[in-house]
Amino acid sequence: MDRIVECVPNFSEGRKTETVARLVEAVESVEGALVLGTHVDADHNRSVITFVAPPETVVEAALRVVERAAELIDLNAHAGQHPRMGATDVLPFVPVRGVSVEECVALAHGAGERVWRELGIPIYFYESAALRPERRNLADVRRGGFELLRGQIASVPERAPDVGEARLHPTAGALIVGVRPLLIAYNVTLKTADVGIARRIARAVRERDGGLLHLKALGFELESRGVVQVSMNLTSYEQTNLHQAFEAVRREAVRLGVEVIASEVVGLVPQAALLAAAAHFLKLENYSPDLVLENRIAAALERRK
Amino acid sequence: MDRIVECVPNFSEGRKTETVARLVEAVESVEGALVLGTHVDADHNRSVITFVAPPETVVEAALRVVERAAELIDLNAHAGQHPRMGATDVLPFVPVRGVSVEECVALAHGAGERVWRELGIPIYFYESAALRPERRNLADVRRGGFELLRGQIASVPERAPDVGEARLHPTAGALIVGVRPLLIAYNVTLKTADVGIARRIARAVRERDGGLLHLKALGFELESRGVVQVSMNLTSYEQTNLHQAFEAVRREAVRLGVEVIASEVVGLVPQAALLAAAAHFLKLENYSPDLVLENRIAAALERRK
Repeated sequence: MDRIVECVPNFSEGRKTETVARLVEAVESVEGALVLGTHVDADHNRSVITFVAPPETVVEAALRVVERAAELIDLNAHAGQHPRMGATDVLPFVPVRGVSVEECVALAHGAGERVWRELGIPIYFYESAALRPERRNLADVRRGGFELLRGQIASVPERAPDVGEARLHPTAGALIVGVRPLLIAYNVTLKTADVGIARRIARAVRERDGGLLHLKALGFELESRGVVQVSMNLTSYEQTNLHQAFEAVRREAVRLGVEVIASEVVGLVPQAALLAAAAHFLKLENYSPDLVLENRIAAALERRK
Repeated sequence: MDRIVECVPNFSEGRKTETVARLVEAVESVEGALVLGTHVDADHNRSVITFVAPPETVVEAALRVVERAAELIDLNAHAGQHPRMGATDVLPFVPVRGVSVEECVALAHGAGERVWRELGIPIYFYESAALRPERRNLADVRRGGFELLRGQIASVPERAPDVGEARLHPTAGALIVGVRPLLIAYNVTLKTADVGIARRIARAVRERDGGLLHLKALGFELESRGVVQVSMNLTSYEQTNLHQAFEAVRREAVRLGVEVIASEVVGLVPQAALLAAAAHFLKLENYSPDLVLENRIAAALERRK
C-alpha cells in the first residue's frame, strides 16, 4: 500500500466480544481494509478497532462498521463511565503515508455526509475536520455524553449537529468524526518514587511550557513498581522524534540526579521513527530509507508491478 | 515474501552497460526475482548484481543469468586486474529471511549441478557450500584466475572442479558457487589523522583478537578527509549488531582520547538491525517487531491472503 489512512473507531461496547468480532468482520469485508488490532475495555465498556486502508476504500470500511455498530449496539442499554455519544462514538481518520491532512479532512467530511444520508445518524466534526472552532477539542464536543445531548440537540442551537437533523438516532445516538495526526505514545521511566520529579521534567520538555514542539507530557507515578514515568504524546514525529524526546528527558533527569531506567512505546510506532532514532544514535551520516534491505525489496516490487 | 534468499553474482564485465542491462533482464525474467541493485566497476571491468528471490525460484534466476553471461561475455577477451575465473565469476547465495544456511547450501549445490549439466561450465564450491576444506576461502579457490586454471584444470588433481569435467567452458571459464552469511559493512569515522589509532581500535574490537564475536575490523586512512576509519564487517548481526560494534569502537576511542565523528553503512542493512539499535539506545523495554506499524500491516496482509 503506497497510500495509507488509519481509522480508529471507538465503540460503546466492551463486554460482548462476539459484537466486537462482528465489527471487525464488517471492516474486513471491504477490499484493502486491514484490522491491525482491537482493544476491548470491559471496565469502560468500550472497544477500539485500529484499521488501515487506502483512501479509496477507507470511507466505505468506516461506513460498514458504523452501520454494523448501529445494528448491534443500543446506546439506551449501555452502561459505562467513559463519556460517549454514539454506538460508534468517535471515528478519527489519521494520515499515515502518502496522504495529506487535507485529503483526510475531505474523507472525514464525505464519511459524515454518507453516515447521515444512509444511516440517519447526526454528525459532529472535531479536530482538523472541525467546522467550528469550539468543536476542535473532542472532550468539548462530547461533554455530558449521550444523556445530556438527548435533552439539548433539538433545543440548544450550539449543540446542533454539523450534518443532519437535530435529532439523535434512536439506538446509535450521534457520531463524532475527525482527523487527527498520527501520534506516538511514548513513556520514559525514572528511578525515583518522587512524582514531583516526573512532573518537573514533563514541564521542562513539553511544548506548552516552552519545550519541544509537538510534544505533550505529563508526570505519573507507577505505584506498583515504585517508580515514576514521564508519559508523552508525540504528535509529529517527523518534527520531534522519539530520540529527541528521550534525550530531552534524560538531560533533565541528569540535572536532577535521577536515572532513566527504560522507555516504552504504547500502541504502534511507524518504522521511520525508530529508523531515524537508530540513525541519530549511531551518527549514521549516510542514512536514508533506501539503505534498508526491506525498503529496497518493496521498491523493487513496486517497480515491477 | 516470507522466505528470501539473496543472490549476488559477480560478472567479468564492467564497461558495456548494455551487457549489464541484459543480465538484469535475465534475472527479472523469473517470477519472484527482484533486482535490488547493480554495481558496475569500469576500473576492474567487473559488475555485481544483487537480487532476491524466494528459494523456489532463486536457482532458476541464477541459472538464467549465468546462461546469459556465458552468451554475452567472452573471458578470452576480458581484461581487468581483479582475479576471476568465469564470465559469471562468483555466485553466492545468502540466507536473508526464513531460510537456513543448510537450505541455501542445498540450493547452491543444485545450482552448480544444473549449470554444469545445462551449460557445460565446471563448478567450484566455496565457503559454507565448500566440499573440501581448502576451498572454503574464495581467494584460495580463485588464486591465479582464469589464466592459471586453464593450464592446471586437467593436469593438477587439486584443481579439478567439484562438479563437471576437468575442462573450462571455452568462453565462460568456470563458476564458483557458494553460500555466505548476510553481512553488514559498517564503518566508524574517527577525528584523528593517525591511522595507528584506527588499527589499534580495530584489533581491540574484532573477534580474531578476542573482541566481539562475528566482527571483522581493519583500520584505514581516509586521506582526502584527513581522518581515519574503523572498517567493519558484521557477519551475524543477530549476535553482534551495529550498536554493539559502534559502542565498542566508541569505548576504545574514548580510552585513546579520540572523538567518533560519524558512522556509515555500505550497501544494504536489514531493517531488524536498525530497529534493534534504536531499541537499545532508547532503552525500549517492550520492543518487539510487532510494535512497528508497517510490520503489523504486513502481518495483517499475510493473514488475509
